[in-house]
Amino acid sequence: VIAPSFARSLLLSTDLLIEDIHFRRRWTSPYFLGKKSLRVNLSDLAAMGAHPYVALLGLVLPEDCLDHFFEGFLRGFLEECASKDAPLVGGDLSRGEKISISVTVCGTVRNGEPLLRSGATPGDEIFLIGESGFSRSGLDWLERTDPDLSRVETEAKLRELTPSDCIFHRVRMHLLPEIQLGAGQWLQERNAASAMIDVSDGLAADLLHILEESSVSALLYRDHLDSYAMEKAISLDKVLNSGEDYALLFTASPNQTVKIRNHYPRNLPVPLSIGRIIEGDPVILLGAGEKYEPYRPLGYDHFR
Amino acid sequence: VIAPSFARSLLLSTDLLIEDIHFRRRWTSPYFLGKKSLRVNLSDLAAMGAHPYVALLGLVLPEDCLDHFFEGFLRGFLEECASKDAPLVGGDLSRGEKISISVTVCGTVRNGEPLLRSGATPGDEIFLIGESGFSRSGLDWLERTDPDLSRVETEAKLRELTPSDCIFHRVRMHLLPEIQLGAGQWLQERNAASAMIDVSDGLAADLLHILEESSVSALLYRDHLDSYAMEKAISLDKVLNSGEDYALLFTASPNQTVKIRNHYPRNLPVPLSIGRIIEGDPVILLGAGEKYEPYRPLGYDHFR
Repeated sequence: VIAPSFARSLLLSTDLLIEDIHFRRRWTSPYFLGKKSLRVNLSDLAAMGAHPYVALLGLVLPEDCLDHFFEGFLRGFLEECASKDAPLVGGDLSRGEKISISVTVCGTVRNGEPLLRSGATPGDEIFLIGESGFSRSGLDWLERTDPDLSRVETEAKLRELTPSDCIFHRVRMHLLPEIQLGAGQWLQERNAASAMIDVSDGLAADLLHILEESSVSALLYRDHLDSYAMEKAISLDKVLNSGEDYALLFTASPNQTVKIRNHYPRNLPVPLSIGRIIEGDPVILLGAGEKYEPYRPLGYDHFR
Repeated sequence: VIAPSFARSLLLSTDLLIEDIHFRRRWTSPYFLGKKSLRVNLSDLAAMGAHPYVALLGLVLPEDCLDHFFEGFLRGFLEECASKDAPLVGGDLSRGEKISISVTVCGTVRNGEPLLRSGATPGDEIFLIGESGFSRSGLDWLERTDPDLSRVETEAKLRELTPSDCIFHRVRMHLLPEIQLGAGQWLQERNAASAMIDVSDGLAADLLHILEESSVSALLYRDHLDSYAMEKAISLDKVLNSGEDYALLFTASPNQTVKIRNHYPRNLPVPLSIGRIIEGDPVILLGAGEKYEPYRPLGYDHFR
C-alpha cells in the first residue's frame, strides 16, 4: 500500500532479466546482477525525468543456486534500492529451471508532465547523454574470453581480472551500467527537453521509437558520431546499434537547447549533439552537408 | 504514466506463474492461462478490498510456442483486463526456455483504509468466502489422468473432457479460479472486516499470516469445517491445506459480524464462520467444545 498523494503523475515500468538471454551466471556475481536489475528498470524512469519511488521484485531461482544466489542478489538489489531511494515494497518468489528476474518500479514526477517519446518536433536538436557501445563491447570480451566473474563483487577485483583499463571500463558498463537519473530529472524539471528515451535496444532503434511516436524524421550528423566513435575506439555501427548502455537520448527545441547550453549543471554528463529532427516519415537519415542516406537500425528485437 | 489523484491509497501486487511449477502447458490452454494470470493477481487486491486499476505484464516465451501461445494467452489476459476494469498499461517480453509470467497489478481504495493482515483482535470471528480444496482436487485429477487440455477454450468443452460435474467443477476452479473482488470491496467499504487475506498457500497457512501479523491466536471450529468438508466431499486436511482457491479469509469484530449478518448482499458468496481469534501466540488450535489441539499447516513454501 502506497500513498503518493504528493505526486501529480505516477510512472510504472516493468522489465525482465532472463538467464542465458540477458545474462550468464558465469559472467556476473549475483551481487552485481542485483544492482544491475534495479538500475535498468530505474533507467526507464530516468528517461521520463522521474524520481524513483518504490520497487517490486519477482525472482525465480533454480534449486542449485538458491542460498548463494539469493543472498548476493538481494544484497546488491537492496543496496541499490537504498542508494536510489526506491525501497523494495513487495514481490514474489518461485522455484524454476532458470534464474528469471522481473522488476517493476514506480516513479513520480513532482511538477509538470513526465517526458514522453512523443514530443519531438521538426527543428529540435537530438542529444545523447552517456556512453553508447561500451556495454556491447564489454559483452563481446566476455563472449571471447569466457572469464569466471561469478564471485567478483568489487570494481577493484574486476579490474584485476581484465587485461586493460579500456576493457575493464567496458565490462564494468555491461555489468554495472550507469543510469542517468540526475540528468533526466534536470531536463524534466527545467522543461529543457521535448522527448526522451533511454537507450536499451540501441541508439538508432531507440531513436526510431521517438520518431514513430512523434511522427517525425531525423538527421544524424555523421561527423559528430564518427568523432565520438573514434575517440571511444568503437565502430560507428556499434555506437548506433548497441543496447544496454542506458544512455539518454533526447530532443530539445531551439529555446530548450539555449537553456541547456547556459544552465546545464557541470556535475552531470555532458549532452552530445548528434542530430536534428526534421519533417517526414519516421526514418533516420545519416550523413553530412547536403548528403544524407537512410539508415536502418540493426536493433535487437526479442520477438523478431 | 498514471494519475490516480482520486485515490487515497494505491496498492501494488506482483505474482509469478512459472511453467512446470505453477502450470503445465498440456493441462491448460494459453487462453485460460491468460485469464488465470490476471485473476490470481487481482485476488491480492480483493483481499485488501481494493478496486483494480491497471496491470503490467512480463512474459517470457520459448521459441517453440511463440505465435500460438502469445495469441491465446493475450486474448485471455486482455478479456480479463476488460471484464475486471484493469487495463494493461505496460510490460516486457523476452525469449526464454520456459514460459514465465510475471503480472503486476495496481489497485485503489476509494475511501477509508485498505484491509490488511494485521487488524485481527481477540474476540473477532473468522470467516471464509469461497471454496477451499477444490483447485487442489482438480489438480489431483489432472495429475492422475494427464489429459490434453491445451486447446480447451470453453467451459462446455472442458465439461466434455471431464468424467463428472463434480470433477469438472474442481478442474474449472483450478484453471479458472473465481476471485472475490465484490465481497472484498463490500467488506472494505462497509468497514465490516478487521483483517483479510486471500487463500493462495492454503487456508491454515494463510490464516497463520494473519495471526503472525496481528500477534494473536486462533481457534478453528472442527465441527463447522468437518461439515464443510463432508458436504464438498473433500478431506479436512485438503480443506485446510490447499492453495490456489483464492477464497477470502477474514476476521470481523462482534459489531462487524452483526453488520455482515444484517446487510451482506445476497448476490455475493456467503461468508462461512470457521473460527474465532483469541489472545496468544500465532498458532492455530483446532477442535470443539473444551478440547482444542494445535494444528500445524502443511502449506506450500516455494523456498522451503
